[in-house]
Amino acid sequence: MEAKQSDDAAVLIPKPESKGKAVVDAPPPPPVAVAARKATVLRRVGWKKGVAIFDFVLRIGAAAAAFAAATAVGQAEQVLPFFTQFLQFHVEFTDLPTLTFFVVANATAGGYLVLSLPFSITCIIRPHKVGPRLFLIILDSVMTALTIAAAGATTAIMYLAHNGSTDANWLAVCQQYTDFCQQVTGAVVASFVAAVFLILLVAVSAFALKRSSH
Amino acid sequence: MEAKQSDDAAVLIPKPESKGKAVVDAPPPPPVAVAARKATVLRRVGWKKGVAIFDFVLRIGAAAAAFAAATAVGQAEQVLPFFTQFLQFHVEFTDLPTLTFFVVANATAGGYLVLSLPFSITCIIRPHKVGPRLFLIILDSVMTALTIAAAGATTAIMYLAHNGSTDANWLAVCQQYTDFCQQVTGAVVASFVAAVFLILLVAVSAFALKRSSH
Repeated sequence: MEAKQSDDAAVLIPKPESKGKAVVDAPPPPPVAVAARKATVLRRVGWKKGVAIFDFVLRIGAAAAAFAAATAVGQAEQVLPFFTQFLQFHVEFTDLPTLTFFVVANATAGGYLVLSLPFSITCIIRPHKVGPRLFLIILDSVMTALTIAAAGATTAIMYLAHNGSTDANWLAVCQQYTDFCQQVTGAVVASFVAAVFLILLVAVSAFALKRSSH
Repeated sequence: MEAKQSDDAAVLIPKPESKGKAVVDAPPPPPVAVAARKATVLRRVGWKKGVAIFDFVLRIGAAAAAFAAATAVGQAEQVLPFFTQFLQFHVEFTDLPTLTFFVVANATAGGYLVLSLPFSITCIIRPHKVGPRLFLIILDSVMTALTIAAAGATTAIMYLAHNGSTDANWLAVCQQYTDFCQQVTGAVVASFVAAVFLILLVAVSAFALKRSSH
Protein backbone atom coordinates (compact mmCIF):
# COMPACT_ATOMS: atom_id res chain seq x y z
CA MET A 1 0.00 0.00 0.00
CA GLU A 2 2.70 2.43 0.92
CA ALA A 3 4.58 1.39 -2.17
CA LYS A 4 1.55 2.20 -4.25
CA GLN A 5 1.07 5.58 -2.64
CA SER A 6 4.61 6.58 -3.27
CA ASP A 7 4.34 5.39 -6.88
CA ASP A 8 1.14 7.37 -7.38
CA ALA A 9 2.68 10.41 -5.79
CA ALA A 10 5.68 10.18 -8.07
CA VAL A 11 3.41 9.96 -11.11
CA LEU A 12 0.78 12.52 -10.14
CA ILE A 13 2.62 15.40 -8.58
CA PRO A 14 4.71 16.66 -11.47
CA LYS A 15 1.69 17.37 -13.70
CA PRO A 16 3.06 16.73 -17.20
CA GLU A 17 3.67 13.10 -16.34
CA SER A 18 0.01 12.23 -16.04
CA LYS A 19 -0.39 12.02 -19.81
CA GLY A 20 3.17 11.20 -20.80
CA LYS A 21 4.03 11.92 -24.42
CA ALA A 22 1.17 14.34 -25.23
CA VAL A 23 2.38 17.12 -22.98
CA VAL A 24 5.45 19.17 -23.84
CA ASP A 25 7.55 21.91 -22.35
CA ALA A 26 7.56 20.97 -18.70
CA PRO A 27 10.82 22.20 -17.26
CA PRO A 28 11.39 19.72 -14.41
CA PRO A 29 11.72 16.18 -15.90
CA PRO A 30 12.54 15.44 -19.53
CA PRO A 31 9.42 13.94 -21.22
CA VAL A 32 11.22 10.93 -22.67
CA ALA A 33 12.34 9.78 -19.23
CA VAL A 34 8.85 10.31 -17.86
CA ALA A 35 7.26 8.30 -20.64
CA ALA A 36 9.76 5.53 -20.10
CA ARG A 37 9.05 5.51 -16.40
CA LYS A 38 5.33 5.40 -16.96
CA ALA A 39 5.70 2.54 -19.42
CA THR A 40 7.69 0.61 -16.81
CA VAL A 41 5.01 1.19 -14.20
CA LEU A 42 2.29 0.09 -16.62
CA ARG A 43 4.26 -3.00 -17.64
CA ARG A 44 4.75 -3.86 -13.98
CA VAL A 45 1.03 -3.50 -13.28
CA GLY A 46 0.27 -5.63 -16.34
CA TRP A 47 2.69 -8.31 -15.18
CA LYS A 48 1.10 -8.37 -11.75
CA LYS A 49 -2.38 -8.55 -13.27
CA GLY A 50 -1.28 -11.50 -15.38
CA VAL A 51 0.03 -13.28 -12.30
CA ALA A 52 -3.22 -12.58 -10.44
CA ILE A 53 -5.29 -13.97 -13.32
CA PHE A 54 -3.08 -17.08 -13.43
CA ASP A 55 -3.65 -17.42 -9.66
CA PHE A 56 -7.42 -17.20 -10.23
CA VAL A 57 -7.38 -19.90 -12.95
CA LEU A 58 -5.17 -22.21 -10.87
CA ARG A 59 -7.53 -21.73 -7.95
CA ILE A 60 -10.56 -22.78 -9.99
CA GLY A 61 -8.66 -25.83 -11.28
CA ALA A 62 -7.58 -26.83 -7.78
CA ALA A 63 -11.14 -26.41 -6.46
CA ALA A 64 -12.52 -28.57 -9.25
CA ALA A 65 -9.92 -31.29 -8.60
CA ALA A 66 -10.55 -31.25 -4.85
CA PHE A 67 -14.32 -31.46 -5.25
CA ALA A 68 -13.97 -34.22 -7.84
CA ALA A 69 -11.78 -36.20 -5.43
CA ALA A 70 -14.20 -35.73 -2.53
CA THR A 71 -17.23 -36.66 -4.61
CA ALA A 72 -15.60 -39.69 -6.22
CA VAL A 73 -14.72 -41.24 -2.87
CA GLY A 74 -17.93 -40.06 -1.22
CA GLN A 75 -20.07 -41.78 -3.81
CA ALA A 76 -17.93 -44.87 -4.28
CA GLU A 77 -19.50 -48.03 -2.99
CA GLN A 78 -19.63 -51.58 -4.14
CA VAL A 79 -21.69 -54.61 -3.23
CA LEU A 80 -20.24 -57.95 -4.16
CA PRO A 81 -22.61 -60.35 -5.94
CA PHE A 82 -22.22 -63.05 -3.30
CA PHE A 83 -22.89 -63.13 0.43
CA THR A 84 -22.72 -65.50 3.36
CA GLN A 85 -25.29 -66.20 6.00
CA PHE A 86 -23.82 -63.53 8.26
CA LEU A 87 -22.68 -60.70 6.10
CA GLN A 88 -23.12 -59.14 2.75
CA PHE A 89 -19.90 -57.92 1.15
CA HIS A 90 -20.42 -54.23 0.84
CA VAL A 91 -17.86 -51.44 0.97
CA GLU A 92 -18.09 -47.68 1.08
CA PHE A 93 -15.86 -44.87 2.26
CA THR A 94 -17.07 -44.86 5.87
CA ASP A 95 -15.60 -48.34 6.34
CA LEU A 96 -12.10 -46.91 6.52
CA PRO A 97 -11.50 -43.81 8.69
CA THR A 98 -8.75 -42.73 6.31
CA LEU A 99 -11.24 -42.45 3.47
CA THR A 100 -13.57 -40.40 5.66
CA PHE A 101 -10.66 -38.06 6.39
CA PHE A 102 -9.91 -37.94 2.66
CA VAL A 103 -13.46 -36.84 1.84
CA VAL A 104 -13.55 -34.25 4.63
CA ALA A 105 -10.11 -32.84 3.78
CA ASN A 106 -10.79 -32.54 0.06
CA ALA A 107 -14.22 -31.02 0.62
CA THR A 108 -12.67 -28.52 3.05
CA ALA A 109 -9.91 -27.62 0.60
CA GLY A 110 -12.45 -27.25 -2.22
CA GLY A 111 -14.68 -25.08 -0.07
CA TYR A 112 -11.76 -22.90 0.99
CA LEU A 113 -10.64 -22.53 -2.64
CA VAL A 114 -14.09 -21.36 -3.70
CA LEU A 115 -14.32 -18.94 -0.76
CA SER A 116 -10.86 -17.60 -1.62
CA LEU A 117 -11.91 -16.63 -5.16
CA PRO A 118 -13.10 -13.14 -4.07
CA PHE A 119 -9.67 -12.49 -2.55
CA SER A 120 -8.07 -13.64 -5.79
CA ILE A 121 -10.33 -11.22 -7.69
CA THR A 122 -9.25 -8.45 -5.30
CA CYS A 123 -5.66 -9.25 -6.28
CA ILE A 124 -6.60 -8.93 -9.98
CA ILE A 125 -8.32 -5.56 -9.47
CA ARG A 126 -5.68 -4.14 -7.12
CA PRO A 127 -2.45 -5.91 -8.06
CA HIS A 128 -0.40 -3.82 -5.64
CA LYS A 129 -2.29 -4.82 -2.49
CA VAL A 130 -0.14 -7.00 -0.27
CA GLY A 131 -2.68 -7.89 2.44
CA PRO A 132 -4.95 -10.31 0.53
CA ARG A 133 -1.94 -11.96 -1.09
CA LEU A 134 -0.31 -12.63 2.27
CA PHE A 135 -3.61 -13.97 3.60
CA LEU A 136 -3.88 -16.27 0.59
CA ILE A 137 -0.31 -17.58 0.68
CA ILE A 138 -0.58 -18.61 4.35
CA LEU A 139 -3.99 -20.28 4.05
CA ASP A 140 -2.92 -21.89 0.77
CA SER A 141 0.04 -23.56 2.42
CA VAL A 142 -2.16 -24.84 5.27
CA MET A 143 -4.64 -26.24 2.75
CA THR A 144 -1.79 -27.79 0.76
CA ALA A 145 -0.74 -29.58 3.92
CA LEU A 146 -4.29 -30.82 4.53
CA THR A 147 -4.77 -32.07 0.97
CA ILE A 148 -1.35 -33.70 0.79
CA ALA A 149 -1.84 -35.41 4.15
CA ALA A 150 -5.17 -36.83 3.01
CA ALA A 151 -3.78 -37.90 -0.37
CA GLY A 152 -0.69 -39.46 1.21
CA ALA A 153 -2.70 -41.34 3.81
CA THR A 154 -5.14 -42.65 1.22
CA THR A 155 -2.27 -43.65 -1.08
CA ALA A 156 -0.77 -45.71 1.73
CA ILE A 157 -4.10 -47.40 2.44
CA MET A 158 -4.83 -48.06 -1.22
CA TYR A 159 -1.35 -49.48 -1.70
CA LEU A 160 -2.12 -51.93 1.11
CA ALA A 161 -5.54 -52.66 -0.34
CA HIS A 162 -4.03 -53.38 -3.75
CA ASN A 163 -1.02 -55.38 -2.63
CA GLY A 164 -1.72 -56.45 0.93
CA SER A 165 1.12 -57.03 3.34
CA THR A 166 2.40 -60.54 3.92
CA ASP A 167 4.34 -59.39 6.96
CA ALA A 168 1.25 -58.07 8.70
CA ASN A 169 -0.91 -60.84 7.19
CA TRP A 170 -3.22 -58.29 5.57
CA LEU A 171 -4.99 -59.47 2.44
CA ALA A 172 -5.24 -57.47 -0.79
CA VAL A 173 -8.93 -56.65 -0.56
CA CYS A 174 -8.88 -54.89 -3.94
CA GLN A 175 -8.85 -58.31 -5.57
CA GLN A 176 -12.53 -58.43 -4.65
CA TYR A 177 -13.54 -54.78 -4.63
CA THR A 178 -12.03 -53.84 -7.99
CA ASP A 179 -14.45 -51.09 -9.00
CA PHE A 180 -14.35 -49.43 -5.59
CA CYS A 181 -10.55 -49.46 -5.57
CA GLN A 182 -10.33 -48.04 -9.06
CA GLN A 183 -12.62 -45.18 -8.17
CA VAL A 184 -10.72 -44.35 -4.98
CA THR A 185 -7.37 -44.55 -6.77
CA GLY A 186 -8.67 -42.11 -9.38
CA ALA A 187 -9.77 -39.79 -6.59
CA VAL A 188 -6.30 -39.96 -5.03
CA VAL A 189 -4.80 -38.83 -8.33
CA ALA A 190 -7.30 -35.94 -8.47
CA SER A 191 -6.35 -35.00 -4.92
CA PHE A 192 -2.65 -34.95 -5.81
CA VAL A 193 -3.47 -32.73 -8.80
CA ALA A 194 -5.25 -30.34 -6.42
CA ALA A 195 -2.22 -30.44 -4.11
CA VAL A 196 0.20 -29.63 -6.98
CA PHE A 197 -2.04 -26.72 -8.02
CA LEU A 198 -1.99 -25.48 -4.42
CA ILE A 199 1.82 -25.65 -4.29
CA LEU A 200 1.92 -23.70 -7.56
CA LEU A 201 -0.43 -21.16 -5.97
CA VAL A 202 2.00 -20.71 -3.07
CA ALA A 203 4.88 -20.25 -5.54
CA VAL A 204 2.87 -17.76 -7.63
CA SER A 205 1.92 -15.74 -4.54
CA ALA A 206 5.53 -15.73 -3.40
CA PHE A 207 6.61 -14.36 -6.79
CA ALA A 208 3.88 -11.74 -6.66
CA LEU A 209 4.96 -10.70 -3.16
CA LYS A 210 8.53 -10.46 -4.40
CA ARG A 211 7.41 -8.28 -7.32
CA SER A 212 5.70 -5.96 -4.84
CA SER A 213 9.13 -5.06 -3.63
CA HIS A 214 10.11 -3.52 -6.98
CA MET B 1 16.15 -3.11 -4.27
CA GLU B 2 14.28 -1.11 -6.86
CA ALA B 3 11.62 -0.28 -4.30
CA LYS B 4 14.31 1.26 -2.25
CA GLN B 5 15.44 3.25 -5.25
CA SER B 6 11.96 4.50 -6.04
CA ASP B 7 11.49 5.39 -2.39
CA ASP B 8 14.67 7.32 -2.50
CA ALA B 9 13.56 9.02 -5.70
CA ALA B 10 10.25 9.97 -4.15
CA VAL B 11 12.14 11.43 -1.25
CA LEU B 12 14.60 13.31 -3.37
CA ILE B 13 12.45 14.79 -6.14
CA PRO B 14 9.44 16.39 -4.40
CA LYS B 15 11.31 17.39 -1.29
CA PRO B 16 8.57 18.39 1.18
CA GLU B 17 6.62 15.14 0.79
CA SER B 18 9.21 12.97 2.41
CA LYS B 19 7.96 13.59 5.91
CA GLY B 20 4.54 15.18 5.28
CA LYS B 21 3.42 17.57 8.01
CA ALA B 22 6.60 17.89 9.99
CA VAL B 23 8.91 19.21 7.32
CA VAL B 24 9.34 22.85 6.39
CA ASP B 25 10.33 24.45 3.14
CA ALA B 26 14.10 24.11 3.21
CA PRO B 27 15.45 22.70 -0.06
CA PRO B 28 18.05 20.41 1.61
CA PRO B 29 16.20 18.15 4.06
CA PRO B 30 16.48 19.25 7.70
CA PRO B 31 18.75 17.05 9.78
CA VAL B 32 15.94 16.00 12.16
CA ALA B 33 13.88 14.50 9.35
CA VAL B 34 16.93 12.71 8.00
CA ALA B 35 17.65 11.28 11.42
CA ALA B 36 14.03 10.15 11.78
CA ARG B 37 14.11 8.52 8.39
CA LYS B 38 17.35 6.80 9.19
CA ALA B 39 15.89 5.51 12.46
CA THR B 40 12.91 4.08 10.56
CA VAL B 41 15.19 2.32 8.11
CA LEU B 42 17.27 0.94 10.95
CA ARG B 43 14.17 -0.25 12.79
CA ARG B 44 12.98 -1.95 9.62
CA VAL B 45 16.34 -3.65 9.14
CA GLY B 46 16.26 -4.76 12.78
CA TRP B 47 12.78 -6.19 12.33
CA LYS B 48 13.88 -8.11 9.26
CA LYS B 49 16.96 -9.38 11.06
CA GLY B 50 14.79 -10.64 13.89
CA VAL B 51 12.56 -12.46 11.43
CA ALA B 52 15.61 -13.99 9.73
CA ILE B 53 17.01 -15.21 13.04
CA PHE B 54 13.62 -16.69 13.95
CA ASP B 55 13.67 -18.43 10.55
CA PHE B 56 17.13 -19.83 11.32
CA VAL B 57 16.06 -21.19 14.73
CA LEU B 58 12.86 -22.72 13.32
CA ARG B 59 14.93 -24.35 10.60
CA ILE B 60 17.26 -26.00 13.10
CA GLY B 61 14.26 -27.23 15.11
CA ALA B 62 12.57 -28.64 12.03
CA ALA B 63 15.80 -30.37 10.93
CA ALA B 64 16.22 -31.94 14.36
CA ALA B 65 12.61 -33.17 14.38
CA ALA B 66 12.88 -34.59 10.87
CA PHE B 67 16.13 -36.42 11.61
CA ALA B 68 14.73 -37.73 14.90
CA ALA B 69 11.69 -39.10 13.06
CA ALA B 70 13.80 -40.74 10.35
CA THR B 71 16.20 -42.28 12.86
CA ALA B 72 13.48 -43.53 15.19
CA VAL B 73 11.71 -45.43 12.42
CA GLY B 74 14.95 -46.47 10.73
CA GLN B 75 16.25 -48.11 13.89
CA ALA B 76 12.95 -49.51 15.13
CA GLU B 77 12.74 -53.26 15.00
CA GLN B 78 11.29 -55.91 17.20
CA VAL B 79 11.62 -59.66 17.43
CA LEU B 80 8.84 -61.46 19.21
CA PRO B 81 9.92 -64.00 21.83
CA PHE B 82 8.12 -66.86 20.10
CA PHE B 83 8.42 -68.41 16.64
CA THR B 84 6.96 -71.23 14.60
CA GLN B 85 8.76 -73.80 12.52
CA PHE B 86 8.54 -71.61 9.43
CA LEU B 87 8.96 -68.05 10.50
CA GLN B 88 10.32 -65.92 13.23
CA PHE B 89 8.16 -62.92 14.15
CA HIS B 90 10.36 -60.01 13.36
CA VAL B 91 9.40 -56.54 12.17
CA GLU B 92 11.36 -53.56 10.92
CA PHE B 93 10.61 -50.56 8.76
CA THR B 94 11.40 -52.24 5.43
CA ASP B 95 8.44 -54.57 5.94
CA LEU B 96 6.01 -51.81 5.05
CA PRO B 97 6.75 -49.63 2.00
CA THR B 98 5.04 -46.71 3.71
CA LEU B 99 7.58 -46.77 6.51
CA THR B 100 10.42 -46.84 3.98
CA PHE B 101 8.89 -43.77 2.34
CA PHE B 102 8.58 -42.16 5.78
CA VAL B 103 12.29 -42.67 6.50
CA VAL B 104 13.36 -41.42 3.06
CA ALA B 105 11.06 -38.40 3.15
CA ASN B 106 12.10 -37.31 6.64
CA ALA B 107 15.77 -37.83 5.91
CA THR B 108 15.40 -35.80 2.71
CA ALA B 109 13.59 -32.99 4.52
CA GLY B 110 16.21 -33.00 7.29
CA GLY B 111 19.03 -32.92 4.76
CA TYR B 112 17.40 -30.08 2.84
CA LEU B 113 16.87 -28.12 6.07
CA VAL B 114 20.55 -28.44 7.00
CA LEU B 115 21.64 -27.47 3.48
CA SER B 116 19.30 -24.47 3.59
CA LEU B 117 20.95 -23.05 6.72
CA PRO B 118 23.55 -21.06 4.70
CA PHE B 119 20.72 -19.39 2.76
CA SER B 120 19.02 -18.58 6.05
CA ILE B 121 22.28 -17.05 7.28
CA THR B 122 22.44 -15.00 4.07
CA CYS B 123 18.98 -13.67 4.95
CA ILE B 124 20.25 -12.69 8.41
CA ILE B 125 23.29 -10.87 7.03
CA ARG B 126 21.47 -9.21 4.13
CA PRO B 127 17.86 -8.84 5.29
CA HIS B 128 16.81 -6.93 2.18
CA LYS B 129 17.79 -9.61 -0.33
CA VAL B 130 14.69 -11.13 -1.91
CA GLY B 131 16.31 -13.90 -3.98
CA PRO B 132 17.32 -16.34 -1.22
CA ARG B 133 14.04 -15.80 0.59
CA LEU B 134 12.02 -16.65 -2.52
CA PHE B 135 14.20 -19.71 -3.07
CA LEU B 136 13.59 -20.79 0.52
CA ILE B 137 9.83 -20.23 0.54
CA ILE B 138 9.30 -22.36 -2.58
CA LEU B 139 11.54 -25.24 -1.50
CA ASP B 140 10.10 -25.04 2.03
CA SER B 141 6.59 -25.56 0.74
CA VAL B 142 7.71 -28.52 -1.38
CA MET B 143 9.43 -30.06 1.65
CA THR B 144 6.34 -29.37 3.77
CA ALA B 145 4.34 -31.35 1.25
CA LEU B 146 6.84 -34.22 1.36
CA THR B 147 6.95 -34.37 5.15
CA ILE B 148 3.20 -34.06 5.55
CA ALA B 149 2.55 -36.75 2.94
CA ALA B 150 4.91 -39.13 4.74
CA ALA B 151 3.46 -38.31 8.15
CA GLY B 152 -0.12 -38.64 6.90
CA ALA B 153 0.57 -41.96 5.17
CA THR B 154 2.29 -43.38 8.23
CA THR B 155 -0.51 -42.14 10.48
CA ALA B 156 -3.01 -44.01 8.34
CA ILE B 157 -0.93 -47.20 8.44
CA MET B 158 -0.31 -46.95 12.18
CA TYR B 159 -4.00 -46.36 12.78
CA LEU B 160 -4.68 -49.61 10.94
CA ALA B 161 -1.88 -51.36 12.81
CA HIS B 162 -3.29 -50.20 16.16
CA ASN B 163 -6.97 -50.79 15.46
CA GLY B 164 -7.12 -53.11 12.47
CA SER B 165 -10.10 -53.00 10.15
CA THR B 166 -12.90 -55.48 10.58
CA ASP B 167 -14.32 -54.59 7.17
CA ALA B 168 -11.11 -55.48 5.37
CA ASN B 169 -10.40 -58.31 7.83
CA TRP B 170 -7.05 -56.78 8.77
CA LEU B 171 -5.79 -57.61 12.24
CA ALA B 172 -4.39 -55.08 14.70
CA VAL B 173 -0.77 -56.19 14.52
CA CYS B 174 0.27 -53.68 17.18
CA GLN B 175 -1.21 -55.97 19.78
CA GLN B 176 1.89 -58.09 19.22
CA TYR B 177 4.47 -55.54 18.15
CA THR B 178 3.85 -53.04 20.93
CA ASP B 179 7.35 -51.57 21.23
CA PHE B 180 7.77 -51.19 17.49
CA CYS B 181 4.41 -49.46 17.18
CA GLN B 182 5.17 -47.10 20.04
CA GLN B 183 8.45 -46.07 18.48
CA VAL B 184 6.90 -45.48 15.07
CA THR B 185 4.00 -43.51 16.56
CA GLY B 186 6.50 -41.30 18.38
CA ALA B 187 8.33 -40.76 15.10
CA VAL B 188 5.07 -39.75 13.40
CA VAL B 189 4.55 -37.10 16.06
CA ALA B 190 8.11 -35.83 15.49
CA SER B 191 7.43 -35.70 11.76
CA PHE B 192 4.27 -33.65 12.30
CA VAL B 193 6.27 -31.29 14.50
CA ALA B 194 8.77 -30.88 11.65
CA ALA B 195 5.88 -30.25 9.25
CA VAL B 196 4.35 -27.57 11.52
CA PHE B 197 7.77 -25.87 11.77
CA LEU B 198 8.02 -25.95 7.97
CA ILE B 199 4.58 -24.34 7.60
CA LEU B 200 5.66 -21.66 10.08
CA LEU B 201 8.81 -21.15 7.98
CA VAL B 202 6.64 -20.55 4.90
CA ALA B 203 4.53 -18.05 6.83
CA VAL B 204 7.63 -16.27 8.20
CA SER B 205 9.15 -16.02 4.74
CA ALA B 206 5.88 -14.67 3.34
CA PHE B 207 5.85 -11.97 6.04
CA ALA B 208 9.47 -11.12 5.31
CA LEU B 209 8.73 -10.86 1.58
CA LYS B 210 5.78 -8.61 2.38
CA ARG B 211 8.02 -6.39 4.48
CA SER B 212 10.39 -6.06 1.53
CA SER B 213 7.65 -4.20 -0.29
CA HIS B 214 7.65 -1.29 2.18
